[in-house]
Amino acid sequence: MPLQTAPLSLAAVLRQRRDRLAELHPRPVVLWSGQAVSRNFPANTYPFRANSHFLYFAGLPLANAALHLEGGRLTLFMDDTSPEAALWHGPSPSRDAIAADIGADAAYPYQDLDSYLAEAATLPAQAAANPERSRALVEALVTLRLHHDDYALDQIKRAAAVSVAAHKAGMAATPGATTEAQVRAAMEQVIMGQGMTCAYNSIVTVHGEVLHNEQYHHNLAPGDLLLADVGAEVPSGWASDITRTWPVSGQFTSAQRDIYNLVLAAHDACIAAAHPGIEYRNLHLLACRILAAGLVDLGVLKGDPDALVERDVHALFFPHGVGHLLGLDVHDMEDLGDVAGYAPGRSRSDRFGLKFLRLDRPLAANMIVTIEPGFYQVPGILGPARQSGQYDDAIDWNRLEVFDGVRGIRIENDVHINSTGCTVLTAALPTHADAVEALVSGA
Amino acid sequence: MPLQTAPLSLAAVLRQRRDRLAELHPRPVVLWSGQAVSRNFPANTYPFRANSHFLYFAGLPLANAALHLEGGRLTLFMDDTSPEAALWHGPSPSRDAIAADIGADAAYPYQDLDSYLAEAATLPAQAAANPERSRALVEALVTLRLHHDDYALDQIKRAAAVSVAAHKAGMAATPGATTEAQVRAAMEQVIMGQGMTCAYNSIVTVHGEVLHNEQYHHNLAPGDLLLADVGAEVPSGWASDITRTWPVSGQFTSAQRDIYNLVLAAHDACIAAAHPGIEYRNLHLLACRILAAGLVDLGVLKGDPDALVERDVHALFFPHGVGHLLGLDVHDMEDLGDVAGYAPGRSRSDRFGLKFLRLDRPLAANMIVTIEPGFYQVPGILGPARQSGQYDDAIDWNRLEVFDGVRGIRIENDVHINSTGCTVLTAALPTHADAVEALVSGA
Repeated sequence: MPLQTAPLSLAAVLRQRRDRLAELHPRPVVLWSGQAVSRNFPANTYPFRANSHFLYFAGLPLANAALHLEGGRLTLFMDDTSPEAALWHGPSPSRDAIAADIGADAAYPYQDLDSYLAEAATLPAQAAANPERSRALVEALVTLRLHHDDYALDQIKRAAAVSVAAHKAGMAATPGATTEAQVRAAMEQVIMGQGMTCAYNSIVTVHGEVLHNEQYHHNLAPGDLLLADVGAEVPSGWASDITRTWPVSGQFTSAQRDIYNLVLAAHDACIAAAHPGIEYRNLHLLACRILAAGLVDLGVLKGDPDALVERDVHALFFPHGVGHLLGLDVHDMEDLGDVAGYAPGRSRSDRFGLKFLRLDRPLAANMIVTIEPGFYQVPGILGPARQSGQYDDAIDWNRLEVFDGVRGIRIENDVHINSTGCTVLTAALPTHADAVEALVSGA
Repeated sequence: MPLQTAPLSLAAVLRQRRDRLAELHPRPVVLWSGQAVSRNFPANTYPFRANSHFLYFAGLPLANAALHLEGGRLTLFMDDTSPEAALWHGPSPSRDAIAADIGADAAYPYQDLDSYLAEAATLPAQAAANPERSRALVEALVTLRLHHDDYALDQIKRAAAVSVAAHKAGMAATPGATTEAQVRAAMEQVIMGQGMTCAYNSIVTVHGEVLHNEQYHHNLAPGDLLLADVGAEVPSGWASDITRTWPVSGQFTSAQRDIYNLVLAAHDACIAAAHPGIEYRNLHLLACRILAAGLVDLGVLKGDPDALVERDVHALFFPHGVGHLLGLDVHDMEDLGDVAGYAPGRSRSDRFGLKFLRLDRPLAANMIVTIEPGFYQVPGILGPARQSGQYDDAIDWNRLEVFDGVRGIRIENDVHINSTGCTVLTAALPTHADAVEALVSGA
């Protein structure tokens, strides 16, 4: 049995983070938490979500607050709740109590921040920023946030465990449900019941071919596959992200099972290959080759799998990347554009089969990424491809019709890169087709 | 059996609304729907909510759209989904199809709106507005939206029915729940499962004395009262708003039941008194007097109830108004300040017992309002009041301790003012203490 070391307190974790920031970035930094955003009138706000860079160093979702970081020193700027606000919103910890919780070195009223701004580096999305200083800050933040500490890993595991439970609830609710909305509700109930929120707008749809589907009004029919991409986020902001695809009837058709198993093979191969040092882009291409080879085996594609991938024929069925960074954002640090996702000097490819890849870096220990291959029949992609005639040598369009019942399948897990390989943080949710069927059928 | 008239189509309803606007406001008007708001990074948005004034005339929650209204003529400005966006977000109806659905007289690309702006009245929150024109537009919108047509009433009834079901689910879930979050989740699951959203952030708390409580982390203890203020909103934006307070154990204590029945008496008296012509402020004062008299009967207050209300002693226990307008916003048109809530020439009182009243108008047929008296022991109000000694002649502080188990009780229903009296739209959810206990206990 390995020796257990006592977990660090939040304050100690935050101290480590800002000490590391100080090494990477000696200049002072100011980060804002943001404020609640109105929905239809000022007092009716969306649930507040603090800025992720702020959360990384503050640990708590404080609204209307800012941090000043310099040389490992943390100064918190926020106002105590006014007596009037406390009447309506209840008591809340004082600035000093919060400062003690997070191990701040000093804490001042919000307006005192003004005098710290002139020297500080800030993020362009948060303040009128000096571009050169911002660039240096962004690079330091990316370097830090790419590699997760134990505290962050633990938080993501908590989110992942609740996402697993939500998916199980969704599968179990499917036989009694008549609409996508009911399955979604059964899943989000689990997340909400644990005091968590959704890390992103759930996708729960029988039209899995619509990749960013945020509608839930379709009825469920026995032959449908239901694709659910639902992930919990803990109160401190750490996210999880799981997709499963299951048969509404509890039983895949033979054609559905063939494609499901192919997507699963691509998924499993990426997991098996993920380790520090491997290029994430090569995991993506591995998934592409397995999908292409499998589609050749199924008679849908014709020719040499490598050549098909080279030609982006696979991408007509798998038009997105195999995954992305995961952390305080479900697409971690996507607010910084591709600076986090793409290693220095790299940029998006023009190729249809690569340009939607969100991550192009060598993997390293303590990165957390998703692995999420898929197969989709998107009418807007396949229709023009068929009409153009230019894929007739590579696609057996008649054979493809056998798979009409597969509009979209995706299998997605959250993967922690460890020192020698990887750990699937969401492994408690089965991926095997039989196990998925059993969860749906309650068998 | 009365003759049934065929309900009007959405297009016909919208035509009536803009014909009425044209009578009230001959000048052209431009209203925007708004766009989705980012949560933690640009692609991760909160669920889109269209502006309520836009929804009133457009009927559909279109993003990135605008309406031009003039002389009963509706012109829709929005762009068709780009082919690239359609790939990821799925097919969506064309501008022309939407225009046909809502009965628009013309429909153009969004950028064509520019040439219509110079002459139009706009809302200050939406565009750099000519103040005089805006004022006239606001007055016309308030006049229109204060009185609901049959279509709006039907939509609010739909929302109300789902809110009723959500509250029943919350009561039924309570015995098996250990936290506020679990009860909230059981309630919101019903709303989400019906394809609706919450009209506002739910309050589900054992600390009902925190009036704007948006935390759900407390454990449920047998002696607690759980206050749930949860309301559904239909996809077209019409809201509902219900509060119930129930015992976690399924059984009110004697002291809790006494206060519950008192709040219910105030509620019932307001409902009985609500009719066209009555001043809403008088309903508020009626509730205040009943609460004061009841607290005298219970030995908590001392003296003449009318004099106690005059002195705002009741307001130490009931610091908010008895309700508000309900419509496309849960506090309808609160984005316009008090223009909707307060009749022309009226403004907020300075009195503690009146200044939080959101509505001060004579009621009229087809207004929809909430009736929501409450009783709270807010430490931030009662602590200073006790310490000051200034209420010692009016409050028996020792007697009050008998009611320590009552931190907060509110009973809220949605009420449609009809031609002679009113109809409680949320009457399907019981208010009687015995019936509430039975729903919690599953008896």
